[in-house]
This record gives sequence, structure tokens and C-alpha cells, in this order.
Amino acid sequence: MSKFRIAAVLGLASLGISMTSQANEGMWQPHQLPALKKELKSLGLKIPANKLSTLTSFPMNAIISLGGCTASFVSPEGLAVTNHHCAYGSIQYNSSEDNNLLAKGFLAKTKEAELQASPGSRVYVTESLDNVSAQIVDDLSLELSGAERYQAIEKKQKAMVAECEKEEGYRCEIYSFHGGLEYYLIKQLAIRDVRLVYAPAASIGKFGGDTDNWMWPRHTGDWAFYRAYVGKDGKPADYSKDNVPYQPKSHLKVSAKGVKDGDFIMAAGYPGRTNRYRTSAEVINNFTWAYPTAKGYREEYIEAIKSVAPPGSDARIKYESTIASLANYAKNYGSMIKSYNKGNMLERKQAQEAALQKWIEADTSRKNKYGAAVAKLDELVKKGQQGQEHDLLYAYIKRTNLLPAAQKLLRLAHEKQKPDAEREPGYQQRDMTRFTQGLERIDRRFAAEVDSAVWVHFLEKYAALADADRIAAMDKTFGLDEGFNADVAAGIIKKMHADTGLSDTQTRLQWMEKSVAEFEASDDPFIKLAVALFEREMAAEAKDKALIGELQLARPAYMDAIIAFNASQGKPIYADANSSLRVTYGSVKGYSPQDGLQATPFTTLEGLAAKYVAGDAEFDSPAKQLEAIAAKDYGRYGQKWLGSVPVNYLGTLDITGGNSGSPTLNNKAELVGLLFDGVYESIIGDWDYDDKLNRSISVDSRYMLWVMEKVDGAHNLIKEMNVVY
Amino acid sequence: MSKFRIAAVLGLASLGISMTSQANEGMWQPHQLPALKKELKSLGLKIPANKLSTLTSFPMNAIISLGGCTASFVSPEGLAVTNHHCAYGSIQYNSSEDNNLLAKGFLAKTKEAELQASPGSRVYVTESLDNVSAQIVDDLSLELSGAERYQAIEKKQKAMVAECEKEEGYRCEIYSFHGGLEYYLIKQLAIRDVRLVYAPAASIGKFGGDTDNWMWPRHTGDWAFYRAYVGKDGKPADYSKDNVPYQPKSHLKVSAKGVKDGDFIMAAGYPGRTNRYRTSAEVINNFTWAYPTAKGYREEYIEAIKSVAPPGSDARIKYESTIASLANYAKNYGSMIKSYNKGNMLERKQAQEAALQKWIEADTSRKNKYGAAVAKLDELVKKGQQGQEHDLLYAYIKRTNLLPAAQKLLRLAHEKQKPDAEREPGYQQRDMTRFTQGLERIDRRFAAEVDSAVWVHFLEKYAALADADRIAAMDKTFGLDEGFNADVAAGIIKKMHADTGLSDTQTRLQWMEKSVAEFEASDDPFIKLAVALFEREMAAEAKDKALIGELQLARPAYMDAIIAFNASQGKPIYADANSSLRVTYGSVKGYSPQDGLQATPFTTLEGLAAKYVAGDAEFDSPAKQLEAIAAKDYGRYGQKWLGSVPVNYLGTLDITGGNSGSPTLNNKAELVGLLFDGVYESIIGDWDYDDKLNRSISVDSRYMLWVMEKVDGAHNLIKEMNVVY
Repeated sequence: MSKFRIAAVLGLASLGISMTSQANEGMWQPHQLPALKKELKSLGLKIPANKLSTLTSFPMNAIISLGGCTASFVSPEGLAVTNHHCAYGSIQYNSSEDNNLLAKGFLAKTKEAELQASPGSRVYVTESLDNVSAQIVDDLSLELSGAERYQAIEKKQKAMVAECEKEEGYRCEIYSFHGGLEYYLIKQLAIRDVRLVYAPAASIGKFGGDTDNWMWPRHTGDWAFYRAYVGKDGKPADYSKDNVPYQPKSHLKVSAKGVKDGDFIMAAGYPGRTNRYRTSAEVINNFTWAYPTAKGYREEYIEAIKSVAPPGSDARIKYESTIASLANYAKNYGSMIKSYNKGNMLERKQAQEAALQKWIEADTSRKNKYGAAVAKLDELVKKGQQGQEHDLLYAYIKRTNLLPAAQKLLRLAHEKQKPDAEREPGYQQRDMTRFTQGLERIDRRFAAEVDSAVWVHFLEKYAALADADRIAAMDKTFGLDEGFNADVAAGIIKKMHADTGLSDTQTRLQWMEKSVAEFEASDDPFIKLAVALFEREMAAEAKDKALIGELQLARPAYMDAIIAFNASQGKPIYADANSSLRVTYGSVKGYSPQDGLQATPFTTLEGLAAKYVAGDAEFDSPAKQLEAIAAKDYGRYGQKWLGSVPVNYLGTLDITGGNSGSPTLNNKAELVGLLFDGVYESIIGDWDYDDKLNRSISVDSRYMLWVMEKVDGAHNLIKEMNVVY
Repeated sequence: MSKFRIAAVLGLASLGISMTSQANEGMWQPHQLPALKKELKSLGLKIPANKLSTLTSFPMNAIISLGGCTASFVSPEGLAVTNHHCAYGSIQYNSSEDNNLLAKGFLAKTKEAELQASPGSRVYVTESLDNVSAQIVDDLSLELSGAERYQAIEKKQKAMVAECEKEEGYRCEIYSFHGGLEYYLIKQLAIRDVRLVYAPAASIGKFGGDTDNWMWPRHTGDWAFYRAYVGKDGKPADYSKDNVPYQPKSHLKVSAKGVKDGDFIMAAGYPGRTNRYRTSAEVINNFTWAYPTAKGYREEYIEAIKSVAPPGSDARIKYESTIASLANYAKNYGSMIKSYNKGNMLERKQAQEAALQKWIEADTSRKNKYGAAVAKLDELVKKGQQGQEHDLLYAYIKRTNLLPAAQKLLRLAHEKQKPDAEREPGYQQRDMTRFTQGLERIDRRFAAEVDSAVWVHFLEKYAALADADRIAAMDKTFGLDEGFNADVAAGIIKKMHADTGLSDTQTRLQWMEKSVAEFEASDDPFIKLAVALFEREMAAEAKDKALIGELQLARPAYMDAIIAFNASQGKPIYADANSSLRVTYGSVKGYSPQDGLQATPFTTLEGLAAKYVAGDAEFDSPAKQLEAIAAKDYGRYGQKWLGSVPVNYLGTLDITGGNSGSPTLNNKAELVGLLFDGVYESIIGDWDYDDKLNRSISVDSRYMLWVMEKVDGAHNLIKEMNVVY
């Protein structure tokens, strides 16, 4: 399945090269921090750096994962704070037309009033982390083919995970670091009774909307509170009235004093993916081909939707979230392309590669050990790029709804022929809840006329590919053999929509139970197309896995060289982000987004009020908040040096998606804010950390407490938390 | 003619209220400066303030007007520097497809190589300024009607101007201050042999284009050099090879040292129009009705053009400058509306009016003297707003080309029946060159299909006016009696375009010679419409003039009260800008355009290079300049504190249109830059000076000298000027 390659091409997976870390660059594994203690102390850290390396004690055991977001415990009774946008699904889940919690916000004044979070919500508390590299790779023969290597590693991982998850209430996962140089088994308590405690109105929590997304100046109150519940025995349990609040071993104090310009800050969280160690060949391919092409596809996709779904139409409403997500990453890619063209990342990378090469060649033993690594990786990278034009286009075709649904259902039928443990990840019993939810969701995101317009648009591009790059089954289904004809294609898709049962949710769910034979006998046009494409899909997947297997040998060899090279200069190397727990540190600091402009590190209540537009979807504000601002009712949170209450602030923390909700900590590990975004100029940060431009955005703890006290009256929570005034 | 009222409504004329001047607010008449000498000295001025009040000595006699722009002499041989955008017409005039001086720039290495400026170019050197208020108003009876008063004032002014202009080579003009409280006769030497000496390429002089217009950060090299020539007798003369460079009595030194953050700066120039003393009723009408309505009309006008003139079409090319000018002021009005809604100008104005009222009422003699002034002005303002919905719409209809041409030609025929001295200004012999040029220009700016689309659009709005507000001749011509029908209207206009001779330049020019009778006998549809509208036009004009006559009594009375009130607090009052010579002073200073952002006062060469987009119409740069920047070849102009050569800088100078090209002077009156724009947030500055947001933009003398030395090789000019290193 070329999704592997698409992921690689678009930078959704890890690894590469970058030899030296700049001042505040680095997403460090906790166990690396003691080695950095001198620097941390000189920057202002007041607690021993060693304390940060122990997962099972304060402050690290207060940092939790929500799966995709980070949160932290802020009371002994399992109260956890995260971003509003991380709890968005739960707020939405509890909202109805009559009781729109998104719009008005929600506060449980008592535990009894707390609401169940959306289905599938989890709080993961990391309990242990073991280096299992030796068990996984030590006995693998170097003679294995790529496919064999991939298979062998997957098999070992599955077995370890299954063994670990025997203890009920735990989720276990193997994380690969440095592209497979190291593997860690991480064991997390998986609390599954999660409740919504408090979320401000969207006009605070989502203030600024898409317009301000990734932007500075910022004034977003991006926080929400959950509470974790467990059974009376203290173990994870399904939701029950009888469950009791989970008692974390530690929790963070919340600072009402906050920070000011230049202060030391750090954050612990679960950053998703970075590509800091990619080769220059990969960088060139991504920034001169993959991102620009994908940006174009996204913009065309949006155009196709809009061409048949005018604003306000039912179809448009169904596709608004699709448009938002397409536009979101079109903007993201656009920023990265712009940064790439303006900056010198490639030149620096090439210089670093040359330096590495020189270092390797300067010593015979190094030459023997690392000599082949660079060339081997380059060869595989090139191999991985073969056919990417087809793959990327096909991936966008598969962003339509019914074909991928049919394909996933068919794959499920195939996988179910194997024992659960041997199935492909995503098709095991543990994945079925999410699988079902995915099928159900299509209902709210599908309109035949839009689907058709998108199909026709991308089929035209598809038909323009060289014959050899196309798939016979696609050509046949859409009559592309004789060239593309929009009317013909539209007619075929219309008939497919008319004849398929897959636009009906119940029918889709029923297909989850059917056999491969039933699929193969089906007349449903999307099922038929899935069946016709199946063999090729499997062959492509096998090819990708074989490549990954080869990369699982080549990347570690390359990273080994990089690590050794840096070690020779006394420099530690952090691994690319991989959703595991990391620590980043730096300071509160502004930056210059452009010559002649300086972003100052704090925004204020008055700046928020200046953005207010009555009734606007993005810039409305609660009347109570506006009144309190107008009255300069700053309470205990006003700062003389600022003349106001700080709302958001900039910092040099090195973060990426997944860090959302991470507590920003001061030098005593007190919570002084929540990370929720980075600035526009640091979107390229997933590839390249630039000291001058990489800035994280935190919502200030003082603004959070001010709103809780002056606007939302969340006195019960302020009382429950350990607030330091 | 309601053009008076439109001008008033859109803030193109003067007067109002604003009681206190903020720190750097003020466009001072030179004779007011000695009274401010203490403040000037404390701010850093190193020359005696008294020196600034003498028009006929340094530095004031080095400051010259180009009519609409300002310039200054920078050598003893008549070399004058102004903005690139002020010399744009002359550069364009000397450009051809084969020799595009706009694109490549122009430098005369010798005097012989200098080029004639565009026809009508003038250099005006102010030689004297006399307060003639007494002669104009002292013997006017208070019993005169508005019309009589207007007539009497116009007659006296014309006589004085004619008398003054008897001396050949001079232009004389009466400027009214404080709405007619004071009148000054200003006599200027009018040099009419003006030559283009040097202009950088548009990719320097116009760098940033419309995108950067009114914006910061800015990197525009907005300068150009003229030389003034006179006859061998030293007197103004028509162009001749035998003319010699004019020898100004003084000229400015050019500083290569420049200024830094916080330094004192001042500027002398000819600001056009401000409305700082308008009443709150006028402010409300402008910001809640006139600007929003005009902004809408402009946007609709642009839409109408675009709807029939796709990009790249011949018609579109003809209308690009019309679109640019419509869009320019739509942006301008938009900024003002935004600033008005965000700020508290109205509240402050109302508070000031209340304070004035209180002061007047606190004393019987004041009550007797000023008591009626406010009420009287308010009454006239209200009167002036009557029918403004019709007038504004009609004004936009008259932005089409052929009807106003016909109307002006008809008016000329009428005016020519009077002796030259009695004719309406604009129709006298001295105006005929400009009149002809206006008629010729239509050729390049007219396409029937676009004209038609605009007509139809605005006729539909016109037809929606109440019957009483419409003009019978318009209704009849366009069949509006039975309601508006787009097809009918389009058909009528099409036929008018087919039948008119006015789309032909020669025909238009021939009409300049025809009699009223010939107009009245004409079958030309646009002439016929002009004839049909004539009586109403004249009646409206008479009504407007009568109102102006009344205002010429009421405004001065009101301003008298304001001046007395301020004098009682020891505060001097500057008059609204009126295109006469003014001085403004302040300092180099950044500002915060938004919470969380600070505009720093200087931009750099590197910031310029970062904006560069190869081949872009707005952001291209000469290769030589980019190379010099890349090589950090700063020469004598690099500043250690900035790490570069400063390109543009911000200041608190109080300026408006007409100040373009003004020299920015340091505390020794050396030229340290040229004013060329203000920032977006200070567009509302024509109404309201806000210390925090009003910022002028100057091009730095160091950047100018650097380009002259490193890019354009203008060594001859550097040598000619008196550069202070």
C-alpha cells in the first residue's frame, strides 16, 4: 500500500540529517536530560535536571497523553487540563441544537454534573519505558530481504505488545527511534472513563478561528478540563456512575505569577512527527515536488467542491470540514514552501552532509563502519520516489469517500481470514471500534454531486499520466482507454452513485461481516472497483513494506554515523519526534517575522478586545469578558510591566503537532501556560529548527485563571487546583 | 455644481474642531515656528527656530513645490530631489517601448543628456506671502447673501491674483486658512523649463507597488532628480537649449550620516488637505455614510469594469489606471472606516466641543461673541448634507468619460461669452493647456463596452432614488420613467456610443471652439444630454456657491472661537492643510500596529532582498543591487547599530498628500530622507492625529546615496551635491 510512501513523501514519517542543534532546538527523551543538566541550570532551571528523567515521579508522571494531544494532571483528584481544540470532539459530542455547549461553554460545578467525553476518549499515563532494541534487531540476519526484515520486526513487535497488554487496563506500544536504531516498549495505563469538566465558550477557546490559526498576534483561550475516572479498585474501567476519580501520583501546581520576557520555560508532551534528519535528496524532493504538488491538489480539490456546492447549500455544509482540512494543510505546505525558498535549509543540510562525509573518510575504521551508509540510504530514497506522481494522485482520488470505504471493507474480509494476532494493524479486534466510527462518519461528509465533481477533476489528471503509470482497472471502470471525456466520466460516476449501496450507513456496516467470496460476487460498483484494484493494492503494499524493511536497516546505519559524528564533537543528538514523551526547553521570547516588524512576546486583554467583531464566527467575544476588560478588572492577574493581563505568549520551545495541550512549565515545573500552536514562520520547523523564527505559542495561565474567575466563575476548579499566587 | 458639496462630503475641503494638539501633531505655517522655539529646542533642533520662519532664506527657500508634490534644491545649480512617484509622469513621458526608462531607470551623466520633463511640469519657488485678510473680508457687509459673499470674495481674489501675476514668470494664488478666517496671497516663481536628471529603475523607485502602498514594512527607493532651468536673464522661460540652470539662493546639504531611532526630524512641504477641525456632525456623516457609500460605489465600479473587461483584454488595459485609482481610495476609505470604528475620535471630538461650549457659556462677552457660531455652522452643515445621496451617486456617474467631457465643453462655450477675468476658474485662458490635455487623455482611458457596463450599473441605482431626487433629463434620456430595465438602458447607451462623435479626440477638441448655439443645435447624444442637464447643473452650482458663501462667514466665526479657547490655555492652533508651505516636526519612531506586534523604525537592505520575487511586477529588483546586498557591500552607508544600510524609516511627522517629496531634515536642516508615504493606520490622519499610530515613512538618504554609488553609478550627482559624510 503506497500510503507508506505517501506518508514518507509528505513527511509524515521520520528520519534524515542535521548535525548540530541550535540553542533551544531539541525534543529530548527524558533519559537524555541529566546529560544536559549544566545547560538547563545555566538557563534557569531550579529543580534538579535528574528529576525530569524519571517517568514515575513529579513532574513527569503528571504529564499524560490523550492520544494525539497532551494533557497534565492539576489536582490530586484526576483533574487534567488540555487544549480546547483537544477536547473539541467531547464538547461537540455533548452539544445539541438546543444546548450548544460549543457556543456557550460548559462548567460542571460538581463532579455529578460532569459529562462523558466522546466515545473512545482515553487518558494514557506512561508507567514504563524499556529499551527493547536488542530483542528486536539483534538476532535479525543482515541477509534478510527487505520484506522479510519488515515481517520479522512487525512480528516481534506484535508479540511484545500482546504480552505487555496481557495486564488489563494497559496500552503498550513499540516506538522506533532514529528510524529503527532503537526501539522502546512503552507501557501506559489506559484510563477509559474520561469526563468533561469545563470548557470555555468557543468565543474564548477558539477565538480567532482559522484566520488566526498558525498566526501571531494571538488571543486564544485554548484550554479545557477533563477528569479521569477509574473503578473503585483503582483500575481502568468502562464508564460507570460508581467509578471514582483517578488519583495521580503527582500533579502540577498552577502558577498565577506566570512568566515574563526572557524567563526560562520548558514543556513535556507527546510530539507527533518531525523530519529533522532527512537527506538533502529527500528535502529537495519534498520542497520542490511533493509539497507544491500536494498544495495544488488540495486547492483544486477545494475548487471542485465549491464548484458544485455553493455556500450555505446542504452539500457545502457536509463538506465544510473537508474544505477546512484541505485548506489547513494547503496553508501549511504554502508556508513551508515559502520558508524553504527564503531560507537556506538545503545549503546547510548539504554542508552538514559534506562535513559528515569528510569525517567518515578521514579515518579507515570509520570508513569501514559508515562508508556505505550514506550511499545505501540515497539509493533507497531514490527507489522510494519511483512512481510517486501516480501514488500522490491516487492518494487524493482515495480521499473521496466510497472507494476507500469499499477497499477497507474488502481488506477487512481478507484480514479476518487470519488469526487476530497476525492481522494487519488497523484490522485487529482492538481496532474495530474506530473502524466502525470511520464508516459511520461518512454519512455526515458525503454528497454525491460533490463526490462526482472531485472524481471527474482527478480522473482527468489521472488520465494524463503515462499509460505505464496507470492502473488497468481504473482505466476500464472510467473508460479512460480511449482518453478522458468529462461527460462520459461524470455519467459513469453518476451511475455508480445510483447503483451503490455504500452511501447507506447500515449497508456499509453490514459489509463488515461479509466474506471475501461475497465481495467478489457483488454487483455494487464501488465494491467491484475495490475488488478489481485489490491485487494491485496488495502488490504495491508488499513493495512498500519491502522498501521499509530495507530502510529499517539503512536509516539506523546512517543515524549511527550521525550520532557518532556528533558525539565526537561532544554534542548529544535527539531523535525525531515519534509521539513518545519528550521534553523541550527554552525561554519566553519574541521574534522578527519580517524586516521592520517585531513580534513582542505577550498579547493583552485589550488586544483581544480590539479584535472583537460582534456576532462574527471567529472573533465574537462573551459580553462578560468584554465588560471586565473595559472595566480593567484584572484582579490578581494584571501585570504592571504589561499594563494588562497577558493572554498568549511566544517561546522558543521546539514543538510539533501532538504537543497540543502540553503544560508550559516554569523553572520550578509549575504550570505557566498551555502550548497550543506555533507561528506561521515555524511551520517548516518539522524539518528545520531556526532559532530566529521558531516560536511556540502558549495560552497564559494568568489569562486562564482570570477567565475562570472573572468570566466563567469556575471557582470550584480554582479551589481544587493548587494555585500559586 | 455639486462638486463642491461632494468635495466637502468626502473631506476634500477643510475645517472643523480639535482643541488640543498632541505631541507631534501640527502642520505649522513657518511664521508660527518662533512661538514654538522652546519646544523645538528641547526636542533637539540645533538651528534657531526663527530661521525656519523666513521664506526667503535657508532652509525654507530650498523647499519648492511641483504643484501637488514637494521637492528641494540640493545643489547650487538647480538640482532638485523629489519622489519617484512625483516624477513618474516625466519618466513615462520619455519612455517608449524600445527605450523603457520606467523599467530601466535613467541617469544623465552630463547636463546635455538631461530630458525635458512632461508638458506642464513646473518648479514653484515661494518668494513672498502676504496676509491679505483685511483687503478681502474687511469691507464685506455681514448683510450679504451667501451667493453675494461668495461672488465678492471670488472677485477680489481674482483681481489680486491678476495684479500679482502681471510680473511675468510668477504664479500667484490666494490661500484661505481656517475656512476663511485668514487669506494669504502667495507669490511663487514659476520655472517652466524642468528637466529629468535621474530616476532609478521602477524596481527600486516603485519597489513594493500597490501591495506595499500605505504599508509598513517598506523598502521603496522613492526618489528622482529634476533640474530647473531659466533663461540667460535668470527669468523663467520656455524650454530652450540656451537656457541655463537656475541658481537657487540656497540648497540643502545631504547627510550621509542620517538619523537613528529617537532622533529629531522635521519636514517642510506643501500638504494638500486635512479636516482636523470638522464638527462631530460632519465626522459622523463622513464616517457612517459618505466613506462607506463611496467605498461601495468604488468597489461596484471596479466590478462593473471587470465584468466586461477580462484581464489582458484591450479594454482592461485602458481601464487599469482607473481601477487602480478606484481601488486605491476604496482601500483608503476602508482604512479610515476601520480606524474610526476601532478608535474614539468621535468621542474625543464631542468632548472637545462640549468643553468649547462650556468655555463660551462661562463668560457673557464670549457668549455674545461666539455664542451663535456653533449653532450656525451646524445648521449649514445640515443644509449641505441635503440631497447628498443624489449628489454622490451623480458624481460617480460623471466618472464615466463622455458625459463630463460634453458638460465641460458646453460650460466652456458659456464661459467664453464672458471676458477672461470673469470666467469660472478652470475655464480661463491660463487653464486651456490642462483643459486640452484632459480631453486628449480620454482616448487612452475609454472603451465603449466598459463605459456601458458602468452606466447601466449606476443607472440602476439612480433609478432607485426617490422621484423627487432624480433629474428629469436623466430619466427621459435613459427611459427611467417607467422604471429601470437593464436591457433597455444598455440599448440606449449602445446607441449613444454609436451616434456620438465625442469618442474621437479630434472631434472633442473641435468642440472647444464652438458656440453655445452650436451645442444647442447638436444631435450628438452626449452633447444633447449635457445641454438638457445644463440648467440644473448651474442651479445646483449656484446653490452650492451660496452655501459656501454662508460657510465663508460661519466657519471663520467657529474657528475664531476655537483659536480663542486654545489661546486661553496657551496653545497655538495650526490651520488645516491647504497646499501652502508648512513645517512639521517630530522624531524617528516605531509604533505598534497591533497588540503583540511592534513596527521597528528602520528597514534594511536584507529585508528588501527578502521581498524580492524575480520578474514580479512589484517585487523585482535589479541584479546589481541584489549582488551588492549579498556581498554586504555597504560602503560608507552601513550602520553598525543596524548591521546594514537603512532603507526606509518611520517618523512621527504630521503629513498628508502633497508632502510627497518633502525633504526629511535633521536638527541642522540637512536632508536625511524624503517623505513619501504614511502607514495604513494613519490614513485617518487627515481627520485625526493619533500620537500612537500616526507615522510617516521616509526613504533614507543613506539608501539613496548607496544606490547612487553602488547600483546606478550616479557619481556625477553625488559630486554635485553637498554630501555630509
